Amino acid sequence: MRDALMLRPVGRVHRSDTASRIEIDAAYADALLGLADYSHIMVLYWFHHNDTPEGRSTLQVYPRGDRGNPLTGVFATHAPVRPNLVALTRCQLLAVDGLTLTVAGLDALDGSPVLDIKGFIPGEPDPDQVRLPRWV
Amino acid sequence: MRDALMLRPVGRVHRSDTASRIEIDAAYADALLGLADYSHIMVLYWFHHNDTPEGRSTLQVYPRGDRGNPLTGVFATHAPVRPNLVALTRCQLLAVDGLTLTVAGLDALDGSPVLDIKGFIPGEPDPDQVRLPRWV
Repeated sequence: MRDALMLRPVGRVHRSDTASRIEIDAAYADALLGLADYSHIMVLYWFHHNDTPEGRSTLQVYPRGDRGNPLTGVFATHAPVRPNLVALTRCQLLAVDGLTLTVAGLDALDGSPVLDIKGFIPGEPDPDQVRLPRWV
Repeated sequence: MRDALMLRPVGRVHRSDTASRIEIDAAYADALLGLADYSHIMVLYWFHHNDTPEGRSTLQVYPRGDRGNPLTGVFATHAPVRPNLVALTRCQLLAVDGLTLTVAGLDALDGSPVLDIKGFIPGEPDPDQVRLPRWV
């Protein structure tokens, strides 16, 4: 067993019908300086509902819960069960108001612990250089 | 203080002059099934050299270490100091050979603990919808 590394949540997701908000803890207010200059951000959060021995020991899934898809290793999917329950989503940053980020396109459940925010910088490879599994 | 969440490294980065390798721990071999179908992967790793009280409490930096850039919150940068030292890099997957992934474009230091691998699926927003800080 390798040494464990420790994460401390820096905020929390609050979902409503219309948009999602991320409430950043006051201790991390200074880390938000300049974030509003981005149109999009990467949000890293924790799949907290799956933080169980079962959720963290599931290594293969049928993608999208469809048994018509091939059994696939979780590293080849974005499944919410995996050894480290880190979720990664790019979303649109609609507003920064103090410690509150209003975002569109965040797929996190209400109450999800937020681990990190990174400004989104484009730079995808050319589409003709990208290869994907058939089920994607 | 919120409850801490625990990460267990799933592998380790080995750098050489030519390419980087990721060695996945044998316990996670099953999670690699189907990964070779991707041309590109997202690698989440840990900025282990900065896992110190100072590295985790630095909330603002001069981007790229250039004092000509404006002082910026770490959430608005990809700086290797931040409350949770999770690094995120898209790289090209050159080969999968057992537990060894050979990759190009991974900026991790030798020995970096690997936290997660996710197959890369394209889908950036249109460039005319992306707004960035001037220093980027």
